[in-house]
Amino acid sequence: MLAARAESPTPIWSRLVALSAQSIGLSEPNPRVGCLLQSDLQSVQAHGHTQQAGGPHAEVMALRAARDQGLDVRGGTAYVTLEPCSHHGRTPPCCDALIAAGVARVVVATLDPNPLVAGRGVERLRAAGIEVEVLPHDHEVARSVRELNIGFFSRMIRRTPWVRMKMAASLDGTTALPNGASQWITGEAARADGHAWRLRACAVLTGIGTVLEDDPMLDVRAVPATRQPHLVIVDSRLETPLDARLWAAPAGGLSRRILIYHALTEDQARARTPALEARGATLVALPGSGGKVDLAAMLRDLAQREVNELHLEAGHKLNGSFLREGLVDEVLLYQAPLLLGSGAGLSSLGPLEQLDQGIRLRFQSVNQVGDDLRILARVQGRDAFLDSPMNVQTAG
Amino acid sequence: MLAARAESPTPIWSRLVALSAQSIGLSEPNPRVGCLLQSDLQSVQAHGHTQQAGGPHAEVMALRAARDQGLDVRGGTAYVTLEPCSHHGRTPPCCDALIAAGVARVVVATLDPNPLVAGRGVERLRAAGIEVEVLPHDHEVARSVRELNIGFFSRMIRRTPWVRMKMAASLDGTTALPNGASQWITGEAARADGHAWRLRACAVLTGIGTVLEDDPMLDVRAVPATRQPHLVIVDSRLETPLDARLWAAPAGGLSRRILIYHALTEDQARARTPALEARGATLVALPGSGGKVDLAAMLRDLAQREVNELHLEAGHKLNGSFLREGLVDEVLLYQAPLLLGSGAGLSSLGPLEQLDQGIRLRFQSVNQVGDDLRILARVQGRDAFLDSPMNVQTAG
Repeated sequence: MLAARAESPTPIWSRLVALSAQSIGLSEPNPRVGCLLQSDLQSVQAHGHTQQAGGPHAEVMALRAARDQGLDVRGGTAYVTLEPCSHHGRTPPCCDALIAAGVARVVVATLDPNPLVAGRGVERLRAAGIEVEVLPHDHEVARSVRELNIGFFSRMIRRTPWVRMKMAASLDGTTALPNGASQWITGEAARADGHAWRLRACAVLTGIGTVLEDDPMLDVRAVPATRQPHLVIVDSRLETPLDARLWAAPAGGLSRRILIYHALTEDQARARTPALEARGATLVALPGSGGKVDLAAMLRDLAQREVNELHLEAGHKLNGSFLREGLVDEVLLYQAPLLLGSGAGLSSLGPLEQLDQGIRLRFQSVNQVGDDLRILARVQGRDAFLDSPMNVQTAG
Repeated sequence: MLAARAESPTPIWSRLVALSAQSIGLSEPNPRVGCLLQSDLQSVQAHGHTQQAGGPHAEVMALRAARDQGLDVRGGTAYVTLEPCSHHGRTPPCCDALIAAGVARVVVATLDPNPLVAGRGVERLRAAGIEVEVLPHDHEVARSVRELNIGFFSRMIRRTPWVRMKMAASLDGTTALPNGASQWITGEAARADGHAWRLRACAVLTGIGTVLEDDPMLDVRAVPATRQPHLVIVDSRLETPLDARLWAAPAGGLSRRILIYHALTEDQARARTPALEARGATLVALPGSGGKVDLAAMLRDLAQREVNELHLEAGHKLNGSFLREGLVDEVLLYQAPLLLGSGAGLSSLGPLEQLDQGIRLRFQSVNQVGDDLRILARVQGRDAFLDSPMNVQTAG
């Protein structure tokens, strides 16, 4: 890892991290990246952030902006929140664009964990005679860039998505009355906020129980969307009804992939497969124990399908399975200022024998959304990969 | 009600409201009051806040401070958060002290709801030739003074204490595992914070179930205390064991009253009464329906015993009874960052048939205390008495 030169990057980096956050809900599954170009005279600047997948990355957006502004970046400096890519992905390498533009110096907040990049971007720039600096791995800015891209880093480093379990409950933890009534415990603002969290995920996951009971759409419709996350259904016996509302085109005329994970043999599945595939669903058989889907294998499969953040929006049974198997990274809980007493709880975890068998979290943030609270809490230790040094070799 | 002169009282009042808050845990059951004396030249000031019951009120403390500082308050102004008392209570009337000191002007944030005062303080001052101003009832400062004294205003206006239900639970609403394990779900900082909330209450209330299961002390020991709130036990059949820990002297060698409310006839109670009274307990028979204590009547009785804020720290059954009977004003919930799954919940409310039968709250504040969250939420509409105009006649 390279050490940064002593300098005070704070004003530029604060701007850049905020800029890169504009890629949330837009660039997925690509990372959220910002780039700022500063001319040699440091008097003028141009910036950009990564666009939709297949569209221009942050560096290219910033170079375009510079061109539009008539800014000469030759001899200037490029600040990038993530190491520029060195490989041909959906777009040509950003390194080449920076080299061609003639910048003299590139400052990188954190290295790209993508094994196709992983230090090669820095090497490529250096080989072209560009001075490259990388902030220390434990630098506050480097940390916040990885935090913003927690799903991307999870997929690249852990080979599994960042799993966020979304729930809505009364203050006493009730998600539905004994008779099933649950619409709506939280208010409109909380529900819209929940859609914004769906949007930033690459996929929304639910279980067949929720499909059969609530018949939800699970698309993003309460906030503007230019893309729709995939829909993943855990449906061990392929019971998703062909007339479920989830088959309807999502909001905005956008399309989405529907992935159904089941636990049937090819023979067992044969009767259901053609109809579901005709609807456009992708069926994946991943049998685990007890006729259930192997959830851990499903997560690995979803990572291979480029799912960074996975938004889990299921009932207490599937929530309980995810929790018991240690597959949940983060809890997103909307709490209504309401006491409901007995009813369904957040998850079918337990019965536990000792308190230390509980799942220990750490509060990340608490905000009031409308009349409700939004609590983001992280399962302790699950984000350690953000801090562990990456296995990246760069010429020092 | 009198209108205030147009002026900008904010700096003085901010200081004064903060000053009066220093009486929390000290002046009960007297209101929390602050007084600031300003000499005619406005260059020097003296202030005071109400001390322990029977000790000096805010006005007397400020007058003493003025004397100690050699400050001449003749012709000066007294700012008081609450209308000065006009009656002989545990101490002589503060009005008389202000008159004797020769102040020319008194500015009062809000009138005293105590029917023994209720405008008579203002009248008495005016009769002595002092110019008196009272802030408008809906003035932000007046509102915050009443809010700070919500228990005192509740007792004076509603004739019942302000009932705060304290609970500690995991994020999924579990207060104890199915096997009863509950120590400790929240951390040390939250438990100490809970003791600070006990301290500000005039009484801590629990049920016989909690006494028998947990054998708690329910005193204030995790924070410094110069007084101990009374202990109230709802014990329908007088089953409080004579060897329970609650009989031990509370922390700091302080004494406290123990009040036991039961539902037995005199004949039924006879066998238990002498032993409990020998321990120093006061027994009150208030039979309600089903062999239970009449909780609403108990609250009225507690108000007559000068209980302003009542700190309810009970199990889910008694919590459920208080909630079902509409007797809870506020919920103080400590939430641990922990998922425990099944177990005992916050209250035995329900089963409800419709969501709108739930008890609707409004979040007042959310704070992180140690690793836990402290959520203060108020039952909607319960604090309306703070805003309703008081039936007070003052010469306008």
